[in-house]
Amino acid sequence: MRILLANDDGIYSEGIYALYKKLTEIADVTVVAPITEQSAVGHAITVADPLRVVDFYKFGEFFGYGIKGSPADCVKIAISDIMDRKPDLVVSGINHGANLATNVIYSGTVSAATEGAMMGVRSVAVSLATKEKYDFTTSAEIGAYFAKYMYSSSLPDNAVLNINVPALSKERIKGWRFARQGNSKYLDTFAKRTDPRGGSYYWLTGEKVEIDVTPESDEYMVENGYVSVTPLMFDMTDYRMYDQLKDTEGKGEFS
Amino acid sequence: MRILLANDDGIYSEGIYALYKKLTEIADVTVVAPITEQSAVGHAITVADPLRVVDFYKFGEFFGYGIKGSPADCVKIAISDIMDRKPDLVVSGINHGANLATNVIYSGTVSAATEGAMMGVRSVAVSLATKEKYDFTTSAEIGAYFAKYMYSSSLPDNAVLNINVPALSKERIKGWRFARQGNSKYLDTFAKRTDPRGGSYYWLTGEKVEIDVTPESDEYMVENGYVSVTPLMFDMTDYRMYDQLKDTEGKGEFS
Repeated sequence: MRILLANDDGIYSEGIYALYKKLTEIADVTVVAPITEQSAVGHAITVADPLRVVDFYKFGEFFGYGIKGSPADCVKIAISDIMDRKPDLVVSGINHGANLATNVIYSGTVSAATEGAMMGVRSVAVSLATKEKYDFTTSAEIGAYFAKYMYSSSLPDNAVLNINVPALSKERIKGWRFARQGNSKYLDTFAKRTDPRGGSYYWLTGEKVEIDVTPESDEYMVENGYVSVTPLMFDMTDYRMYDQLKDTEGKGEFS
Repeated sequence: MRILLANDDGIYSEGIYALYKKLTEIADVTVVAPITEQSAVGHAITVADPLRVVDFYKFGEFFGYGIKGSPADCVKIAISDIMDRKPDLVVSGINHGANLATNVIYSGTVSAATEGAMMGVRSVAVSLATKEKYDFTTSAEIGAYFAKYMYSSSLPDNAVLNINVPALSKERIKGWRFARQGNSKYLDTFAKRTDPRGGSYYWLTGEKVEIDVTPESDEYMVENGYVSVTPLMFDMTDYRMYDQLKDTEGKGEFS
């Protein structure tokens, strides 16, 4: 099995290193990841600037290509140029923090996986559902489990699984379940502050005001001790609305 | 009707100005847009840096708030802080260039609309399907048409319509149709070059290798002279795969 490993926390981060160690036990792993943190970049790609590729070594046992760009850039350049042939799988993570519910759309971790699927490579995004300092060993094992699962599955070449692991010891994790993206509600607020030169600036903050507690919601599962496994797609069409509008509203003319 | 107008080409761009002129004939318009071009930023939001808001005037008739941030940032800060109450509609555009098929996921224009929908405001993204210099008058009229359409429709608060206007004179546009996002295939390539100091860099290029020619594809419609209207959603769950996996694969345990 040949794996392309990317992330959005950056090539220096603990999560990618922990996952690398587990994945190299079962696969030939190429690491291509951003050289700086790229959280919340969504599915950004770099079109107006050049990309640089730098070699990155850690502890004499971890080698990767560092990219000054977004997670999606990393996957594009890895598959197009760095790797001599297409990998069997793209794995992204481990993200330090959950990628659940409506927040998935902001996720750089998920965008690396989605980009893989858009290039015809099945992909897995792995996130550990805590921002606190936490050991990545269990989530790395679970990430490797789903890499094997995806590799041996009959899912199509454009399949993406978004895995979120609760911050619990292995014994306390109850198992895994397929989930759908939850509909939790957030309230965005901005802290307004004054800089040392007297100028004002805003800083995004925000709080969850309502969690989606339906049993099949990804967030609810993770809260209840399960690993959530959500199949994602990169087609953003709202098919339900499309079918309804197509039939009831039909079409229009301007002149 | 109160409209929040945003874009990704930047507050200085011709497309937002043309759309502003048409929208102010039918609505009270607040402009909040990036101060620099933000194309291909996807659904990025700024979490690790402060945001600045600057006043922007043009020709004594156009006023807006310029944000050093992404299109999604603009919509977040506009609805949370700048506007005294929620707008009836978010309109994003006019983008100078199409946002069709699988490219929708990279679109800053679309992300501003999607962010509006996530905040409970119906949204319309408008793009003109050419990168060449082109007059925005017709696409601005069509954008205003769909702002009215959306305002008077009974679509839910989280509805997003992605409008793409062919680069044709008004007389040659055949009308509009509901569409789904097409499945066109692209080949990513990177030009590898050497900078003046001898370092190497890559620059993303790419070509369309296959266009989705099914009649309901957004791209095919625009190629055939129709305005495409695609309802989008921000839930990325692949429900078809979810239903299938949930039933056939069930669930798993780790211990």
